[in-house]
Amino acid sequence: MPQKVRIALDAMGGDVGASVVIPGAATALTRRPDSEFLLFGDSALIEAQLAKYPALKAASRVVHTDVTVSMHDKPSQALRRGRKTSSMWLAIDAVKKGEADVAVSAGNTGALMAMARFCLRTLPGVDSPAIAAVWPTVRGDSVVLDLGATIGGDARHLVTLAVMGGAMASVLFNLERPTVGLLNIGVEEIKGHEEIREAAELLRAMNLPQLNYIGFVEADGIGKGLADVIVSEGFSGNIALKATEGTARQIMDLLRAEISSRWLARIGYLFARGAFRALRDKLDPKKSNGGVLLGLKGVVVKSHGGTDAEGFAYAIDVGYEMVRYDLLTKINQMLNRDGSALVSAQTAQEAVS
Amino acid sequence: MPQKVRIALDAMGGDVGASVVIPGAATALTRRPDSEFLLFGDSALIEAQLAKYPALKAASRVVHTDVTVSMHDKPSQALRRGRKTSSMWLAIDAVKKGEADVAVSAGNTGALMAMARFCLRTLPGVDSPAIAAVWPTVRGDSVVLDLGATIGGDARHLVTLAVMGGAMASVLFNLERPTVGLLNIGVEEIKGHEEIREAAELLRAMNLPQLNYIGFVEADGIGKGLADVIVSEGFSGNIALKATEGTARQIMDLLRAEISSRWLARIGYLFARGAFRALRDKLDPKKSNGGVLLGLKGVVVKSHGGTDAEGFAYAIDVGYEMVRYDLLTKINQMLNRDGSALVSAQTAQEAVS
Repeated sequence: MPQKVRIALDAMGGDVGASVVIPGAATALTRRPDSEFLLFGDSALIEAQLAKYPALKAASRVVHTDVTVSMHDKPSQALRRGRKTSSMWLAIDAVKKGEADVAVSAGNTGALMAMARFCLRTLPGVDSPAIAAVWPTVRGDSVVLDLGATIGGDARHLVTLAVMGGAMASVLFNLERPTVGLLNIGVEEIKGHEEIREAAELLRAMNLPQLNYIGFVEADGIGKGLADVIVSEGFSGNIALKATEGTARQIMDLLRAEISSRWLARIGYLFARGAFRALRDKLDPKKSNGGVLLGLKGVVVKSHGGTDAEGFAYAIDVGYEMVRYDLLTKINQMLNRDGSALVSAQTAQEAVS
Repeated sequence: MPQKVRIALDAMGGDVGASVVIPGAATALTRRPDSEFLLFGDSALIEAQLAKYPALKAASRVVHTDVTVSMHDKPSQALRRGRKTSSMWLAIDAVKKGEADVAVSAGNTGALMAMARFCLRTLPGVDSPAIAAVWPTVRGDSVVLDLGATIGGDARHLVTLAVMGGAMASVLFNLERPTVGLLNIGVEEIKGHEEIREAAELLRAMNLPQLNYIGFVEADGIGKGLADVIVSEGFSGNIALKATEGTARQIMDLLRAEISSRWLARIGYLFARGAFRALRDKLDPKKSNGGVLLGLKGVVVKSHGGTDAEGFAYAIDVGYEMVRYDLLTKINQMLNRDGSALVSAQTAQEAVS
């Protein structure tokens, strides 16, 4: 590999901060030794952690700041207080300045979105950013977006999401022409959300070489893995995400309660625990940690705020992959190659509406 | 009890028709002997089934029609072909004519909605109907609406949903003042969906005696049972429903696959099967079968099309409860008592927007 992947970390982000971020980075480094880190935050806290991980220390540079965005700051507060000074801003700004290839933060989503947008700006042709994540399905992994960055949007916005999600899936899953579905509800002839039907017509009419539009997918089709990429505006995408996460957690809790309330079942559990462990492993939210902010002039990865070091390492992995396989160039190419396509899309939109 | 509950059944509805509907009715009758049935459909098929259930036969009247709405008919087709003649229409019309107290159909949702709306019309003060269902949670059952009848809607629509859902929860769960939450996403200061925030302000300002508005609930809060009633417009409600159903099914499938691929786990399963059975029982979609169409001048219950006789019996149970505990009167009272409230709501809406 020609060059190291330079990763900027908001070392103060998340519920815990440096004592999760630094061990997480150490784990990520053992998996991808061609990484180097820029660590933003309270240098005393960071150095105390780094002392335990000499390999990471050797691959890192620490930039001190004592300004931190709290998990409860509203986006406007975060921008007011933390612009140009906070660990979150500095990590993003390192990407803008070309000192890092990707920024990763477990800080609060609204603040991260606002800062990333403000600092990096959106790509030409993109009006609003999106959050995309890898979603485990019974068939393998899919990319789902938008998980809550932008609420609503017209048909062209949905087509842009399809293009960006397609680029991410082709980078992550090494697919030439990932399948793309639009999240919709099953009832036919329903009123409202014309933009989804328009987006479907656009995607069909455009017949893009980089993605294979397969039609509408209902919310139970995401977990079935009906498409490599599922596209939705941010409100519905967030509803689907939270409903899925919640249900998975609640079922595992119920099962645990049912087993532990029966002595025979507790014995059974001892025999079956390999199966339970495998299931828990498949459903492990840590492994799908790392939402990618798409549509910006730079790559920013959002980790769950409450994750542990292992989970944070997965978010770093996602950032690494995006850089190593050149997501941004790919999206730009798609948007530009489709610069024409998206313009003709607008014409097509007028034609169908 | 003063009077029998008169239940009109679309005996042809669903993937199977009479051979599910009639045994389902027989089961429901054993549970609620003060029911009587009006059975609409092909009399030969119905009578063949009734011959097996003499108690049901004695409590039923069969009305023959050979027109059936297919599971694939679009609403407009169904209305064109089946108005005034189909088993689905006749069951609904029996409610309109006062010959039945409730209609139950496992026929296709779009057609049932269109026919119910066309035949029964909406209640005064209600612009658009909703589908509500009982949702199993870790804390007990909740009512969730709208699951897909009406897409989008303004703050006043959401307030009407809250009132109707509150009435249904107080009837079903025997609660004086059920808690009500509005489905929303967690990110603060987000743009779009102002109607949800407006509805929140309205509900707070109105401070209705029949319901206790508790605030926004994220999609993972539904299964936690954070509120007795969860209110959403139909698109997001349907996304939440399908995501939850899909995830539950996929996890049980994954668990089954993991267990059967390990001989030790298969032995464990034998010990633990009581726990699995209890879990399956709790998650049994049959038991939450029966979506109630709310906002119409009559009660119509929609059963899953693919359910079996036991599942269909649960849908009849839901219809029975709605009638026995006088849902419609309760909704009407609420809407009227709030006739003033909803009018002042409009004023309030103007005040906050």
